[in-house]
Amino acid sequence: MRDAIGIIGLGLIGGSLARALKRARPSLEIVGADADADSRAQAVGAGAIDRGYALTEAPLESCGLVVLAVPGPTLLAILPEVAARLAPGAILSDVGGSKGPICAAAAAQAHALFVGAHPMAGTEFRGFAASRVDLFDGCVVAQCAPRGGPASVTDADREAAAKRVTELWTLAGAARVLNVDPEEHDRAVTFASHLPYLAAAAVTEALIDSGAVAPLARELAAGGFRDTTRLAGDGTVSGAAAQNRFLPDAARALAKVLTDYADRLEAAPEPLRTHLARLADERRAMKLPIRKA
Amino acid sequence: MRDAIGIIGLGLIGGSLARALKRARPSLEIVGADADADSRAQAVGAGAIDRGYALTEAPLESCGLVVLAVPGPTLLAILPEVAARLAPGAILSDVGGSKGPICAAAAAQAHALFVGAHPMAGTEFRGFAASRVDLFDGCVVAQCAPRGGPASVTDADREAAAKRVTELWTLAGAARVLNVDPEEHDRAVTFASHLPYLAAAAVTEALIDSGAVAPLARELAAGGFRDTTRLAGDGTVSGAAAQNRFLPDAARALAKVLTDYADRLEAAPEPLRTHLARLADERRAMKLPIRKA
Repeated sequence: MRDAIGIIGLGLIGGSLARALKRARPSLEIVGADADADSRAQAVGAGAIDRGYALTEAPLESCGLVVLAVPGPTLLAILPEVAARLAPGAILSDVGGSKGPICAAAAAQAHALFVGAHPMAGTEFRGFAASRVDLFDGCVVAQCAPRGGPASVTDADREAAAKRVTELWTLAGAARVLNVDPEEHDRAVTFASHLPYLAAAAVTEALIDSGAVAPLARELAAGGFRDTTRLAGDGTVSGAAAQNRFLPDAARALAKVLTDYADRLEAAPEPLRTHLARLADERRAMKLPIRKA
Repeated sequence: MRDAIGIIGLGLIGGSLARALKRARPSLEIVGADADADSRAQAVGAGAIDRGYALTEAPLESCGLVVLAVPGPTLLAILPEVAARLAPGAILSDVGGSKGPICAAAAAQAHALFVGAHPMAGTEFRGFAASRVDLFDGCVVAQCAPRGGPASVTDADREAAAKRVTELWTLAGAARVLNVDPEEHDRAVTFASHLPYLAAAAVTEALIDSGAVAPLARELAAGGFRDTTRLAGDGTVSGAAAQNRFLPDAARALAKVLTDYADRLEAAPEPLRTHLARLADERRAMKLPIRKA
């Protein structure tokens, strides 16, 4: 029974993790918890989990590894309580996008050894219905060093726990698991994910609020608008973004760049165009994950 | 011979237009012009055009309709000269993304009746090699009322010219051709395309300039970053964006929204999260073109 894996939150990320683990190892026992009975039923029906429970009813004590896959604010709120319910020696992990506050909360509890992780994958759709078995195929996972847990935890325990979480994500399809410091992760993810999210939201808001031309703007919105603003429709990023303490200053810096672009467009557009053309070359040269069908 | 269509610029847009027209009507004669000999050879080799020329050598006088498919600044520069080379009664059109300055330049010449158009389609790749026969399938095309040309042009000529350009885009796969005023088009396209482009560029620049965490940020960049910044790699938007006189103020307004988000994230993130969640719902409810495989 202690080989069971618990997944708390059966949405896009938790649901996809369950599916991917079952694909890799059908005999793996997965216990799922979600507040929504429909999601639990869907997850059992799809064979992603063996049994589904409301969190308070879930037999977390039977799991050797429990993964918190709920939005950022909820994650912080339930982490200590979930840690307290684990069996001695069981590992707690998560998928949250802001590792600083989560790792700090995990370090502050003495019940379970915690290994934070953040898979760099998502879609703009939510809930178990949006989960997909290949969501993590080829993705990068950021993983933080183990922390928290009882005073009896040894370095060997920490090493084994880190290895176990890395294996979990490799099993789920990840191409690489990177060891990161929580603060460094949050600084980096500001630029890789949270700032893009905020920009996407601002661009969406600009079109919606464009007044008399809004109906025509909606008609003319095509692939460029669709892609630039896709993240704005992602309900799972906002929680992590709000917990990222580096984001406000990054947003202000982005605002300055946009104001600077505006000034340069009015003063003399050619030097800016040259600059943007060089940027376009750099963007095209970036190695980014291929879109899945 | 006067039934031939001339396409000046055999890049992504001009090349795709040629391919799409040949798909719909293989017997259509298409004369292509491009400064790059490789592009001309590729276009002939792919059966997209019948003959390719440098612009100065192109037999424009044999074309009943000539489409300018070059970047914004070049387009404005060559428009009068190209118009002067057309046969009497031939129609000049374009694909430029800022219709105000182009329509003004077209109205100022007395050689050819001009019907401006702007197909709302693109990819981040450039050149004939990136062209695709289905680029315009299902897309929306903005089309402006005819203007310019000799004093002898009648309302019937204008009506016929508008109809011919609409037919051209329908033949190329467009789902709808919208009649738009140039200024209204430019205001709307600010929000639908040029502002998204500028935001994409600024987000790309933020990651590149993120200092010590830039290498990790690049490693963690996944589908969200890829999509938000795709337009930044699009070399064809910048010319039109630089010609859009509504863009600088829109960029400043976007900067204010981002600064406001930053302040609210620091003050109390929950009301902002509620706001962004509502925005996410609106974004997901938007009818946007489906991505092509």
